[in-house]
Amino acid sequence: MNTVKAGLIGFGTIGTGVLKILNSSAKLIKQRLGAAVEIVKIADLDVKTDRGVVPGPGVLTQHADEVIHHPDVDIVIELIGGYEPARTFILKALENGKHVVTANKALLAMYGDEIFSTAEDRRVSIGFEGAVGGGIPIIRSLREAFVANRFHSIEGIVNGTANYILSRMSDDGCDFASALREAQDQGFAESDPTFDIEGIDSAHKIAILSRLAYGTPVTFDEISVQGITHITQEDIQCARDFGYCIKLLAISKYDGEALDIRVHPAMIPMTHPMANVNGVLNAIRVCDNLMDESILIGHGAGALPTGSAVVGDVVEIARNLLAGAPHRVPAQSFQKSEVQRIPFRELYEIEAQYYLRFHVLDKPRVLSKIAGILGDHSISIESVIQRSPGPHERGVPLVMMVHRANERNTQAALKEIDQLDVVCDKSNLIRVEK
Amino acid sequence: MNTVKAGLIGFGTIGTGVLKILNSSAKLIKQRLGAAVEIVKIADLDVKTDRGVVPGPGVLTQHADEVIHHPDVDIVIELIGGYEPARTFILKALENGKHVVTANKALLAMYGDEIFSTAEDRRVSIGFEGAVGGGIPIIRSLREAFVANRFHSIEGIVNGTANYILSRMSDDGCDFASALREAQDQGFAESDPTFDIEGIDSAHKIAILSRLAYGTPVTFDEISVQGITHITQEDIQCARDFGYCIKLLAISKYDGEALDIRVHPAMIPMTHPMANVNGVLNAIRVCDNLMDESILIGHGAGALPTGSAVVGDVVEIARNLLAGAPHRVPAQSFQKSEVQRIPFRELYEIEAQYYLRFHVLDKPRVLSKIAGILGDHSISIESVIQRSPGPHERGVPLVMMVHRANERNTQAALKEIDQLDVVCDKSNLIRVEK
Repeated sequence: MNTVKAGLIGFGTIGTGVLKILNSSAKLIKQRLGAAVEIVKIADLDVKTDRGVVPGPGVLTQHADEVIHHPDVDIVIELIGGYEPARTFILKALENGKHVVTANKALLAMYGDEIFSTAEDRRVSIGFEGAVGGGIPIIRSLREAFVANRFHSIEGIVNGTANYILSRMSDDGCDFASALREAQDQGFAESDPTFDIEGIDSAHKIAILSRLAYGTPVTFDEISVQGITHITQEDIQCARDFGYCIKLLAISKYDGEALDIRVHPAMIPMTHPMANVNGVLNAIRVCDNLMDESILIGHGAGALPTGSAVVGDVVEIARNLLAGAPHRVPAQSFQKSEVQRIPFRELYEIEAQYYLRFHVLDKPRVLSKIAGILGDHSISIESVIQRSPGPHERGVPLVMMVHRANERNTQAALKEIDQLDVVCDKSNLIRVEK
Repeated sequence: MNTVKAGLIGFGTIGTGVLKILNSSAKLIKQRLGAAVEIVKIADLDVKTDRGVVPGPGVLTQHADEVIHHPDVDIVIELIGGYEPARTFILKALENGKHVVTANKALLAMYGDEIFSTAEDRRVSIGFEGAVGGGIPIIRSLREAFVANRFHSIEGIVNGTANYILSRMSDDGCDFASALREAQDQGFAESDPTFDIEGIDSAHKIAILSRLAYGTPVTFDEISVQGITHITQEDIQCARDFGYCIKLLAISKYDGEALDIRVHPAMIPMTHPMANVNGVLNAIRVCDNLMDESILIGHGAGALPTGSAVVGDVVEIARNLLAGAPHRVPAQSFQKSEVQRIPFRELYEIEAQYYLRFHVLDKPRVLSKIAGILGDHSISIESVIQRSPGPHERGVPLVMMVHRANERNTQAALKEIDQLDVVCDKSNLIRVEK
């Protein structure tokens, strides 16, 4: 029986999950792979904490270099997260001719060009299924299954914390702050939840998926990002009245000319196949010229789902090694020489359908004034709901769904409307995706 | 630039789709694969029909042997369907050392042992992503992504025709016969729709998925199969009243001791992530010990979605050939020596929650008689709805949801209830899955 040897840098939640999976599924992996996978070295600054799984004698070290330079290690698994020292470790490992498996979405979203290019130059594999959607096989599908497909769009619910909060607000009528507190109490949300609720984590993930789908370099900082902190219970209820629910979507569209990549809360119809994706579940929908749409749903975070993806990548590389084909699939899905920069479309250039929320004084002719301004900006109203005001609210909530319009016009109209003396609060917009 | 050469047997709908995709996506495939894929020989009895795509001179032949024995052909794509001569062609190709790609679910469900074993013995690859769920990457995920995962269950909406009919019945209130006629008019259903509406096609697919998930031989004829022809508009409406919808499910469960594999209409909650999978969409949900649940949704049939999967398999094998690793992944997901027979559990041994429908005379004590018989068989009622009778109906529809019970007891109770003189028609049962 052959054994493929790997080393692990980062013995935290996911790293511990990976070791536990490799132990508990050792027999199953052998039955499928025809060989064993062994972790021969684990590096972590903390070598004392009891993690419920004990590495063999001499396996644990505080020095990542002992993993990266270990002569028996063919695959380096990086699970420390963040930019540095993860970036340095991965680059060193690749330059050393080691294959790399990582779940580090922030790093790949920011330094993807450098890392993928190094892997390609050294003709080694880099697996990162765990970086997007936990155990959901989206990276594998984009790199290997959908190879003849011309993608039009990718939309994802790719942050479990944000989805949990929005689901709680929708199912139980609670407000944003208490749903967040609950997510923190349950361990879904970090004590500093900024990355999750501000859409940054989602932007990391859509940067990676866009690169694979379209064969273009995309870095995180080019993406327009808006989080869910301004979503109110009223928005959730109005969405429902219109037959929609609100999800934090990572969106990437390509019309053959320019890329439209953005993260923001969006309204999707209740009958949408992703409308029932609730709680910590993630979902990714890709649309292309051959299959129309494909949707993959699953648990997007946690030690076991993400560990499952990491182990899947390790076994894939092990298969390549055992078959004598260490470099089978290009890191970025496209051959390195074929990766070409596609221009970005700015957010104000897009067209969308919009949900608009105003707080207005309950006076005659308010609606006609607002409708007039919208009309001046070529925006036509599809339907309007005037709701009863909440107990502590100034003004009356007035919400409407408008037909497809230009973002620039819509923003300009809102700005003008907010100047009206009958408008009590800053108006809000949520884009509709179908 | 390298070129990988393939031959095609069967130039029908899917075969034509594959050639069109290879032509229209030629550049994209080169950008991703780093090589071209060329079809050098196509065999079909009909060499005259205009299919909207013209093979090069000398490519089309009436003799499959010219594909199978072509010296330049590395990959034989079989797309004629059915048992024979597809079986003979595939076995000949494998024995000839050719890699095979097929979308023939009936063949793999019936002769899987022979075909997979031949591929393994000859150390060649066999791709069959197109056999289940069209473009949905479920075969790839089971064989390559979920390698450390111990599966508990697979449930699939894997027949687009049946799903279209049930969706139409649910959305538009039409009856089974007119929904079927409409599916036929739209080209979704064959003129003889038996395989689709009687669950046979779904059983073929779940046989294949079960083999890959559990590493056991499964053949189609071992599976308990029930179609959707007896589903009435009343069932659909009652399901909705209880908060459920009705789907034709292919179900495969493994409790570590025995396999429970069956195809039948099932009620799933409206909040289930597969409840919004309507029309011709397919969905497959796998549950395992690491990821809890994963759901893949997409178009399960048609020239382009299935062609997309076939081309994906061809490119996968091309990657292996270019990397010098022709046999990377075992055909059945498990190494041949590890495939072991798992015993089947008979349908009457399972436990489920049930929806029961009776037609009874509108007389006093009818419910108490029925409830009494159910109680005698250890079946307890969760909720009951008595509906108004339809205009031409004998008796009154009485429907109920019962708590989890044994199938044998439930069937025995129904048999006894059907003997009552207050029962007008044969009673019906639909299992509930969550």
